[in-house]
Amino acid sequence: MIRVGIDIGGTGIKVGLVNESIQIIREGTVPTVIDIPFEEQVKRIADCVLSTVNSAGLTPDDIESVGIGIPGIASSETGEIIKCTNMGWKHVPFRETFRKFLDKPVFIENDANVAALAESVAGISAGTSSSVFITIGTGIGSGIIINGQIWKGAHGIGGELGHTILDLDGVPCTCGNHGCLERYCSATALIRMAREAVEKHPESAILSIAGGTVSNIEAKTVFDASKAGDPTAVEVYRRYISCLAQAVASVINLLDPEVIVLGGGVSKAGSYLLDPLVREIPQYVLFNDQPLPSVRIAVLGSEAGIIGASMLS
Amino acid sequence: MIRVGIDIGGTGIKVGLVNESIQIIREGTVPTVIDIPFEEQVKRIADCVLSTVNSAGLTPDDIESVGIGIPGIASSETGEIIKCTNMGWKHVPFRETFRKFLDKPVFIENDANVAALAESVAGISAGTSSSVFITIGTGIGSGIIINGQIWKGAHGIGGELGHTILDLDGVPCTCGNHGCLERYCSATALIRMAREAVEKHPESAILSIAGGTVSNIEAKTVFDASKAGDPTAVEVYRRYISCLAQAVASVINLLDPEVIVLGGGVSKAGSYLLDPLVREIPQYVLFNDQPLPSVRIAVLGSEAGIIGASMLS
Repeated sequence: MIRVGIDIGGTGIKVGLVNESIQIIREGTVPTVIDIPFEEQVKRIADCVLSTVNSAGLTPDDIESVGIGIPGIASSETGEIIKCTNMGWKHVPFRETFRKFLDKPVFIENDANVAALAESVAGISAGTSSSVFITIGTGIGSGIIINGQIWKGAHGIGGELGHTILDLDGVPCTCGNHGCLERYCSATALIRMAREAVEKHPESAILSIAGGTVSNIEAKTVFDASKAGDPTAVEVYRRYISCLAQAVASVINLLDPEVIVLGGGVSKAGSYLLDPLVREIPQYVLFNDQPLPSVRIAVLGSEAGIIGASMLS
Repeated sequence: MIRVGIDIGGTGIKVGLVNESIQIIREGTVPTVIDIPFEEQVKRIADCVLSTVNSAGLTPDDIESVGIGIPGIASSETGEIIKCTNMGWKHVPFRETFRKFLDKPVFIENDANVAALAESVAGISAGTSSSVFITIGTGIGSGIIINGQIWKGAHGIGGELGHTILDLDGVPCTCGNHGCLERYCSATALIRMAREAVEKHPESAILSIAGGTVSNIEAKTVFDASKAGDPTAVEVYRRYISCLAQAVASVINLLDPEVIVLGGGVSKAGSYLLDPLVREIPQYVLFNDQPLPSVRIAVLGSEAGIIGASMLS
């Protein structure tokens, strides 16, 4: 038997067939199309599953379950997708509709929760019973695993670390509030800090690496300039690490999981991110003379979405 | 059979006998004494249990278990109290020592966790499987209940909401960091805000109610002046509620428990605290068009320590 994992993204929908050893044995993709009726959107996804199964020499009878990770929230009870802005979905009966085309058990979960589950089952936090996964990209996503299971909250709205307040009356957030954690810890935040810094320090290597154009600055630009010893970049990066360390320490003070896993684009910096972060975290932890959670970089990368979705039950 | 709950405080140690209907049938107290050897401290507590049991017409054979709530942290595995500053305890073998005097199953837990358990078993959050208890006093304590059990973290250092960061580079905290949540949401924080406000507005009723002496200002002073319509007090209280709403909303965004329970001295303000808070919380919750956790005032008061400790297992 295989389990199907589906990763719904803004540009494409990835389908993967996962065997009992938690390996992806076949993948398929279908471009995301949003300007068609909901039922047709769902049929395209189900068709992609069926053709992927077929191309692997399998039949629908070989499918045990179908799991779907979405950038949004869903109800485990009803199988309704409550909100998935990228796809233009609001209160849509996903499970019911999908089963018209492929009648298997269908599970739907937020994509950061799915990635948290994937890492805790088959990734860097495998073998632990509690972990918090933090994905550092355009925003900050997070997923909480407690007693080996996703903790999405009593009303399905938890796991949104990015929108906890880190700075009262701070930087305005896309959500309408001020001072949300993701405004200080995401790639977007690092880029904002760099842009502000080069306004004061136009001689900075950040700007020259970006070809002299402020809007070309990326997270990697700051890493590169900082590695090269550019004082402005070093200072921007120091500040960014300090914010992220305070965010991670807050997770430790409140939840104290076995492991904290960092994923997303910024985590690709590897030890250049992890080493200074791990050095700085303890100073913000209340009981810092005790054993602390281990902080690790995610290992499953883009496969986390498929693997985690396939593990939903 | 009865269960014994012990509440260890800075001035006194309270012992309670709790029956199978989760009612306290007898209480005893012994003053806290810290300048005697550890083993004598423990013997005093055990003696208080024995005399309380005796005074209720019972014998040690009637005791099923002994639970202890401490303002500190302990190891569930070893029964060691790792840190309990009030009592001067650091890495003391509490369970082992206590059982020399009374050989029963002994469980030790942080006092905010104990109160969280008490409310979730016999108080305002009874019948729920997840809740976060926040005690608002000199500092901010908290306890997390998930799947009906205390979640103290993988290393026993979780549940410290008061030392998560709410304001980067903010007000210095007793823990050595800056901007900890308890510096904005505790009674101490409300008093600090009031003192700062009366410096600018010496005409405020806050100061006259405090007899003209800034150091006499208490949380209740601000409540009273605000209820009387004093503009400075109204503004201080508005700011305090805003900070607390952002703190509670952050708990919702991250953990989304069924219920959030507010305890401690400030919670005695009842609906004067709860009503404006509940009005303001949704604006800081990301998915605020969904059902949200119910926010309630604790009901067990000072009995929570004994009842919760007695329920430990």
